[in-house]
Amino acid sequence: MFEDFLNNQNSWLNGRGPEAGIVFSSRIRLARNISGIPFPCRASDLQKKEALCAAKKTFCRVKDVAGSSFVEMDSLDSLDRHILLERHLVGPEHMACGQGKAVIVSKDESISIMVNEEDHFRMQVIVSGFDLGKCWNVINNIDNSFSKEIPFAFSSDLGYLTACPTNVGTGMRASCMMHLPALIFTKRINKILELLTRISFTTRGLFGEGTQALGDFFQISNQASLGQSEEELIDNLMGVVNQVKGQEIDARDALMRKYRHNLEDSVWRALGILRNCRLINSKEALSHLSVLSLGLDLGIINDKDLSCQGRPRQLINSLFIEIQPAHLQKIEAKSLKEKERDSVRADILRERLSKE
Amino acid sequence: MFEDFLNNQNSWLNGRGPEAGIVFSSRIRLARNISGIPFPCRASDLQKKEALCAAKKTFCRVKDVAGSSFVEMDSLDSLDRHILLERHLVGPEHMACGQGKAVIVSKDESISIMVNEEDHFRMQVIVSGFDLGKCWNVINNIDNSFSKEIPFAFSSDLGYLTACPTNVGTGMRASCMMHLPALIFTKRINKILELLTRISFTTRGLFGEGTQALGDFFQISNQASLGQSEEELIDNLMGVVNQVKGQEIDARDALMRKYRHNLEDSVWRALGILRNCRLINSKEALSHLSVLSLGLDLGIINDKDLSCQGRPRQLINSLFIEIQPAHLQKIEAKSLKEKERDSVRADILRERLSKE
Repeated sequence: MFEDFLNNQNSWLNGRGPEAGIVFSSRIRLARNISGIPFPCRASDLQKKEALCAAKKTFCRVKDVAGSSFVEMDSLDSLDRHILLERHLVGPEHMACGQGKAVIVSKDESISIMVNEEDHFRMQVIVSGFDLGKCWNVINNIDNSFSKEIPFAFSSDLGYLTACPTNVGTGMRASCMMHLPALIFTKRINKILELLTRISFTTRGLFGEGTQALGDFFQISNQASLGQSEEELIDNLMGVVNQVKGQEIDARDALMRKYRHNLEDSVWRALGILRNCRLINSKEALSHLSVLSLGLDLGIINDKDLSCQGRPRQLINSLFIEIQPAHLQKIEAKSLKEKERDSVRADILRERLSKE
Repeated sequence: MFEDFLNNQNSWLNGRGPEAGIVFSSRIRLARNISGIPFPCRASDLQKKEALCAAKKTFCRVKDVAGSSFVEMDSLDSLDRHILLERHLVGPEHMACGQGKAVIVSKDESISIMVNEEDHFRMQVIVSGFDLGKCWNVINNIDNSFSKEIPFAFSSDLGYLTACPTNVGTGMRASCMMHLPALIFTKRINKILELLTRISFTTRGLFGEGTQALGDFFQISNQASLGQSEEELIDNLMGVVNQVKGQEIDARDALMRKYRHNLEDSVWRALGILRNCRLINSKEALSHLSVLSLGLDLGIINDKDLSCQGRPRQLINSLFIEIQPAHLQKIEAKSLKEKERDSVRADILRERLSKE
């Protein structure tokens, strides 16, 4: 599985989804628990194992996840667990050792199902670009298939029951990872974030809470999961994302009108640095990759400039992930100190972005 | 003449002088005045014209300056005057309009003689690298040849008489333009500058006073011109320059031992930025060129990396001068605003430093 990750042409990182220039990815996850087994935080090791077995038995029979890998977290070393985290396939809480933790990952990485995280099941579908409809179709089918095999904890009053009350109801969280460099540059982002919080949407960075604005990414998701249908929640999120997208487009247009030369300069400098640096930390690299991505959207650079044979967005998107610490160590097949990582990161960026 | 400047392979910028990695150039100038004519600041227009005529008549007969151009400053537009300034062929005071001002420039730009600047004659010889001996031989011959034709103001007590008392005696100022990036980076430069001032040496930047440390250049010259022979003054300066050179070498060695990776990173980033930028001001460009020059000295980059067919130092040295405002406007053959210059500067740097 891990070997495939780096060559995965079909992953949500391929940049071929709709409006992938501004909406990096769309994601929906559902929280589900098995009726009669306590939530993982309260379950005994045996009970967690019971949930794990149910998951393992069922996933083979569900055609929507055919060909997926079933991986017990305990069977992975720390590096591989971090790879899963960096690829957005598991959450940070799933990293700690613990009985019965597992993850089911589809071949193209679009589907992942965490077992015995906060809930017995955390199903996730993630796709390239702005396509919550596709996420919903896929995850709804998976949910239905699993439901036929496993009795999910459900109350006719409240809906799906979950370990944390914020997830009760639909158990759904839908989100879009947006790339908003122009709104950040023009400082209009702050008002937008404020407004989003006020109307009950949550924002995070590329790698979860506390990584706000890293690489100019913001993940926007619904806060409420109760009192509305899944479709309504998705519609609301789509409305918000569309609005933010419009604002980003306006800000980009304004920048291009007023500061075209400066933008071109920034984009080419970013490429020049990434192609020549010998040491670079993750934060700086993300920042230059963000500028490259913007340059691609604005037509300042193209696939020929990046020498990447027609897949410039896939190249940049993959690099956002592959320059992270665990990926670097996986590529080098050894543990690396911070300074060594900065050196390997520079090597990889140079190699991947360099002209033949 | 101006057309030749940019293609001048034999100029003092060619980087082929001894130890040209640390000593960019060596320069000696002599101040001379014609006996019986008041110094230019006191002379009438007619008297200045008299000095001018003497210069014009004599220079044709002096074989050391055969083939040189004789240019009256009034015949040049402001741009061409600035070109002469940026190429270190005239000083800033020679730029203002004024009766009788002229400059004699040898084909390879190693010799220039300002007429009616502060003194009637300011003869200068400038060569690549650390070679004050060569400067002295050349300028001494020129001085002797002129002396045979023109009665120079000379007092047996004081020596040569000059408009400013600081030049009385030998009328000589000798200087070396040193490239001291490692001493600047390690902050050891400040103590050295302090010491130099205390022992009566003057330091300036690449383009004269007030440009200290631009591009990591320092010009070191003798302050006194009286009470010592020319040879003694030159020997003293050579001693000082040798000491500073030794310190720079030590600082470079230490940097390479401790921070080799960071140095390599800096050098390659500088090249990456210069090869890709679309807008760059003069100060930033000088700073990157300085790092390139250091990288060349330290073997971090070579002529192949710079794609310049065996003359990497000449390329970098020429760029130090050619990215200056007047040169950019000469190359573009039109007046340019600051932002336009930043754009043209970036174009030229990209073109000159780019791979085929």
